Amino acid sequence: MCSRILSYRFLLVCRLLWAAPLLATGAYAEQPPVSDLTQDCIACHESIHPGIVADWKRSRHARTTPAQALKKPELQRRVSAKKIPGNLADVVVGCAECHAMNADAHKDTFSHNDLRVHVMVSPRDCATCHPAETDEFAMNLMAWARVNLANNKIYADFMRAVNSPQAFDNMKIRPREPDEMTGADSCFHCHGTAVEVKGFEKRDTDHGEMEFPVLSGWPNQGVGRFNPDGSKGSCSACHSRHQFSIEAARKPYTCSQCHKGPDVPAYKAYEVSKHGNLFSALHGQWKFYNVPWTVGEDFAAPTCAVCHASLLVNKDQEVIAKRTHRMNDRLPWRILGLIYAHPHPRSPDTSVIKNRDGQQLPTALSGEQASEYLIDSDEMAKRRAAMQGICRSCHSADWVNGHWVRLENTIRTSNEMTRTATEILLKAWKEKVADQDSVFDEAIEKQWVEQWLFYGNSVRFASAMMGADYGVFANGRWYASKNLQEMLDRLRFLLGTKN
Amino acid sequence: MCSRILSYRFLLVCRLLWAAPLLATGAYAEQPPVSDLTQDCIACHESIHPGIVADWKRSRHARTTPAQALKKPELQRRVSAKKIPGNLADVVVGCAECHAMNADAHKDTFSHNDLRVHVMVSPRDCATCHPAETDEFAMNLMAWARVNLANNKIYADFMRAVNSPQAFDNMKIRPREPDEMTGADSCFHCHGTAVEVKGFEKRDTDHGEMEFPVLSGWPNQGVGRFNPDGSKGSCSACHSRHQFSIEAARKPYTCSQCHKGPDVPAYKAYEVSKHGNLFSALHGQWKFYNVPWTVGEDFAAPTCAVCHASLLVNKDQEVIAKRTHRMNDRLPWRILGLIYAHPHPRSPDTSVIKNRDGQQLPTALSGEQASEYLIDSDEMAKRRAAMQGICRSCHSADWVNGHWVRLENTIRTSNEMTRTATEILLKAWKEKVADQDSVFDEAIEKQWVEQWLFYGNSVRFASAMMGADYGVFANGRWYASKNLQEMLDRLRFLLGTKN
Amino acid sequence: MCSRILSYRFLLVCRLLWAAPLLATGAYAEQPPVSDLTQDCIACHESIHPGIVADWKRSRHARTTPAQALKKPELQRRVSAKKIPGNLADVVVGCAECHAMNADAHKDTFSHNDLRVHVMVSPRDCATCHPAETDEFAMNLMAWARVNLANNKIYADFMRAVNSPQAFDNMKIRPREPDEMTGADSCFHCHGTAVEVKGFEKRDTDHGEMEFPVLSGWPNQGVGRFNPDGSKGSCSACHSRHQFSIEAARKPYTCSQCHKGPDVPAYKAYEVSKHGNLFSALHGQWKFYNVPWTVGEDFAAPTCAVCHASLLVNKDQEVIAKRTHRMNDRLPWRILGLIYAHPHPRSPDTSVIKNRDGQQLPTALSGEQASEYLIDSDEMAKRRAAMQGICRSCHSADWVNGHWVRLENTIRTSNEMTRTATEILLKAWKEKVADQDSVFDEAIEKQWVEQWLFYGNSVRFASAMMGADYGVFANGRWYASKNLQEMLDRLRFLLGTKN
Repeated sequence: MCSRILSYRFLLVCRLLWAAPLLATGAYAEQPPVSDLTQDCIACHESIHPGIVADWKRSRHARTTPAQALKKPELQRRVSAKKIPGNLADVVVGCAECHAMNADAHKDTFSHNDLRVHVMVSPRDCATCHPAETDEFAMNLMAWARVNLANNKIYADFMRAVNSPQAFDNMKIRPREPDEMTGADSCFHCHGTAVEVKGFEKRDTDHGEMEFPVLSGWPNQGVGRFNPDGSKGSCSACHSRHQFSIEAARKPYTCSQCHKGPDVPAYKAYEVSKHGNLFSALHGQWKFYNVPWTVGEDFAAPTCAVCHASLLVNKDQEVIAKRTHRMNDRLPWRILGLIYAHPHPRSPDTSVIKNRDGQQLPTALSGEQASEYLIDSDEMAKRRAAMQGICRSCHSADWVNGHWVRLENTIRTSNEMTRTATEILLKAWKEKVADQDSVFDEAIEKQWVEQWLFYGNSVRFASAMMGADYGVFANGRWYASKNLQEMLDRLRFLLGTKN
Repeated sequence: MCSRILSYRFLLVCRLLWAAPLLATGAYAEQPPVSDLTQDCIACHESIHPGIVADWKRSRHARTTPAQALKKPELQRRVSAKKIPGNLADVVVGCAECHAMNADAHKDTFSHNDLRVHVMVSPRDCATCHPAETDEFAMNLMAWARVNLANNKIYADFMRAVNSPQAFDNMKIRPREPDEMTGADSCFHCHGTAVEVKGFEKRDTDHGEMEFPVLSGWPNQGVGRFNPDGSKGSCSACHSRHQFSIEAARKPYTCSQCHKGPDVPAYKAYEVSKHGNLFSALHGQWKFYNVPWTVGEDFAAPTCAVCHASLLVNKDQEVIAKRTHRMNDRLPWRILGLIYAHPHPRSPDTSVIKNRDGQQLPTALSGEQASEYLIDSDEMAKRRAAMQGICRSCHSADWVNGHWVRLENTIRTSNEMTRTATEILLKAWKEKVADQDSVFDEAIEKQWVEQWLFYGNSVRFASAMMGADYGVFANGRWYASKNLQEMLDRLRFLLGTKN
Repeated sequence: MCSRILSYRFLLVCRLLWAAPLLATGAYAEQPPVSDLTQDCIACHESIHPGIVADWKRSRHARTTPAQALKKPELQRRVSAKKIPGNLADVVVGCAECHAMNADAHKDTFSHNDLRVHVMVSPRDCATCHPAETDEFAMNLMAWARVNLANNKIYADFMRAVNSPQAFDNMKIRPREPDEMTGADSCFHCHGTAVEVKGFEKRDTDHGEMEFPVLSGWPNQGVGRFNPDGSKGSCSACHSRHQFSIEAARKPYTCSQCHKGPDVPAYKAYEVSKHGNLFSALHGQWKFYNVPWTVGEDFAAPTCAVCHASLLVNKDQEVIAKRTHRMNDRLPWRILGLIYAHPHPRSPDTSVIKNRDGQQLPTALSGEQASEYLIDSDEMAKRRAAMQGICRSCHSADWVNGHWVRLENTIRTSNEMTRTATEILLKAWKEKVADQDSVFDEAIEKQWVEQWLFYGNSVRFASAMMGADYGVFANGRWYASKNLQEMLDRLRFLLGTKN
């Protein structure tokens, strides 16, 4: 480990030492230059934080300079900037390059061994080399995941019902306000916390006393995080530090971090689909690093990234689908999370939506759509065509059409089942055996939530991804019909106790 | 992409082009001939459907001729035909070989660039080279999965309760008939649809206007599918197109497509067993392509295929288990899906069974077996011995016997718990607080269903596969006992509201 | 297969034969000697039990002698004995070495071809070479898993409620005593059975009549098993026979055998964490065989073993964490299984604990801790520091502290929710609408159990492992709050039927 006293000479020695293994493995000739600043970082952190330094060394960032990356043919390029600032172009993308980027914009910037660094690298920092991806992501619902949850009154009520500590008092359950830490440990883990600088403090370290920022909402890698530089989102939600492995991002496990629960069971449906089976059984033979990604040659069945994000080509290098970081570019329908499936919202900021009754919801409780906030049928057709183009890489037009007709039928019938559950709830409210003030706190209301949030979603995901086994008994049609009966029994019980 | 105008000369060029990569990789010397017809198919479809062509190129079908396959020693042979028709013997098994096979028998045959082809390759087509497997599969319950579900009045009632859109009307839940598309998206996804030719239509394609058959029930790869040539079943349910990878079929993910839900949680129990752990942790070292499959040398713990299907030998090439595609050849007990576990049915067509009370069920509601339709104790002993022979490849006779005694005890006790649930339901029917007309639509009836379909099955699978963790709290004994209490509470509530 | 008549000459030939493949593969030079006794075992068992012999041949035991193992630098050593008995030191660790070890101590010892062998190799046998691991394991809660369950009156009541066959009789559910086989198929599968010698019997085998011990509670590999030599535990619960692969033990699938159900959902929370994602996506690049295990170089994200058991070093070979087989060495809090999360017990024998009310529980029903039986805050701080040292291999001190503050907040709030559920239950008992005699048999009591056993545990595991998706809707906060409402509704129903 490095000494506690940092001198220029000492760092110089460390620089030589850490480069040694690269020399030894014969990789030297190809190893492009690492900036002096980054070598200084590594000199200490390789002993203090061995995991992240070793991880970074395995990354493409550690082995390529942006200037080299720019020389690739356009389809093969992983950087979208046309030009890279001079001081960054000819060194690899190391610690100092990212953690000292845009220092003035970062409220979390602090002085660390004479370099002004920040802990959290934001999408705005990444945009230096990846501006197109950052722009697309800014239009992605995910970048707004915190806004869309935190700025919606109905969801605030929902979160209170789920996260609050609750007390039993005089035959009532009484919630108190959930604390911020519980939110960060629950919904905002995925949706993103607000990371704010609360001040700076000195701490003892192995290298003597040093000053660090005090952050609230930290740690967090939620996809819609508020960052101390004023930007929204976290690239590392999917592109995990510090290897930033495209292989990991393209495998479905990354998506499963947030899309496996019964509220968004995308991964569960995929897992039992033919596609998921082929991925699990055969992906050892596939090539996850190639850009562009060639259908058939690089992979034999889709992962999440294939259908929703990646740049795909056929063997003649003709583009089948353009890369996108706006994840609903190929999706006409929003089948998850909300009371009724509906066309995707126009704006990624869904807190602006108002339904007929003034609620921040894309449909009324009756199912009627707040159409002015949703994409129209032309846009839906365009997105459907984009997705079907990918399906047709392996399936006939007939096959693909048959699948989509069935999916859209299931969207309709699952919405119908939700409408029935809603009518039972409306009856309970009308008869005053349930209290409409909060929509989420009584047992019959919670049953209603499960009708759409669990069973409606599951049935639709199972249909969309052809993972039928998940949509029947696992968490789908069986429960959707059972739940209606149980809601009815509860309504009868509530009416009985009232009279 | 190929031109829109197809000429013989053009196709010839394409043939040369697609062979080029094989030449380049030095595989040419071993590459047996591809028929002219198949080369014509590939000439266009490699650009249009790059996924499936690339997949096929990775297949054994693309690299071997049936004649070569027949020359292998018998134990190593993957074809069971003694003789292959002359026109097929000396070319690889390509597009035209399968999709133009038995053209006259196929109602879905259509003319496509002067070749009469059909979209769906059926088990009868596969039987040209694999007749023994096809014959075994025809005796397999799975080939009858559609028949057994669609031709059973009780199951029809069950499907209606699960799949129907339902309305709330005057304090009742009223189902309407489920549409065919919902069935195809639900139960028949795995059990198989009836694919029928509804006519032919012309469509614009990249290659000009072409005629195609219009199919109902399509797409589908359900294991008991009705095919347009009159055959039953789908080989691609397990042997996925177009690589037809034996590796994928032998890995448990294939089985999990239909056997992971709480109704048939075979995969879930396997996953947490010692066997499943060893598979997950170590299968990267195993050899999934070898035929026959050598215990210990090729794999160190069973997958589904090991115990239920594959041809197994020891290192001296002595046969431990013969290959079978009748999946209950090694199973005395049918532990899944039905009210009580019972000896396997004699006939794969279970719609012929009638219990004491005239229902198409292998047991009465009391548990009494419809013995004349079920295998007798001699046949059970034979099948038990077949399975135990496999267990003994790694376990002592003492170990194996101990395991089976325990499993058969669990079969007995789980049946007992189902009997108790049935008595509660009978009481509800007798007291007229539930309506016996349909057995699946009221809440207390749905609880009864879960007793056997979820908890009884889970407890038995966890026992059979030694995945105990799944059989206690995950979906097993805990719920089996809790459900009885909740049925009782509901019965008390129903009796209370009646009086 | 070997002849039925065993002669010295015959065994000699077999010895030569089985060594042949090693010669052929050029491995001979490095292959250390196999004892004559072990060669005799293999001579027959390679044909009879091909799976286990092939598995053993892949093991380190088959390729190294203890004497060679002792020569390694200390950090690289997998044996902890300072000295190995002479007859074992210079041969590989084969069948006879383990199965004939300590023959006199084993009640299951029997004479088998003139060798006195036992079927079950116990921790005491393994301690010959691995004494430190065995000693640590003896202090591990897991070694006491059977004692702690079987010797606790409250748990006995719990097991009765879960495992008993139950009958419906005069509007009551009546359990009968669960039989021993059900226990072995349920709780004691993981916790361990009591394996006892009930006598000896002669059996016909392929090699003529032989005598074997008759064992009760067999088969079993539960981690707290009682062995016929009087020892407790089973190394093969995690170190699976006969490859004893450290790779398998270090992968999370091994732990998932017993820690995946909703009662201990460690694996489920891990799976959807960033750590679990990185493991699933990238572990093909990692090195699971290295001892010591170098953070960053050998693996890029933790598995269960990393945080809870393995010897970890940084690239300078500085120890980050010492190896331990006492699994709570790095854990201040016991977050699983019991009514309230609490500091870890001092003694691995938890049956000695008595709470304020004399129950064998670490807390009272009110949550009050039985502090004298639990580790104090100094010991908690020490264990917390041990774990945080591992976290800091990849995360800043700030990050790690933020995470722990949140986790400890979640421990508090989840305990609070359990306290609320307990108050509802106490009300039901007080009002005599539930019967306190057994705490586990009525529906409202079962709901109470789920509050802590399923939802409290899930919320805490999701927090501890940063697998938030599992802790909200999958089996966490959503159900924790819903369950309280449903308990309240049931209490109202019970009070209503009473009056």
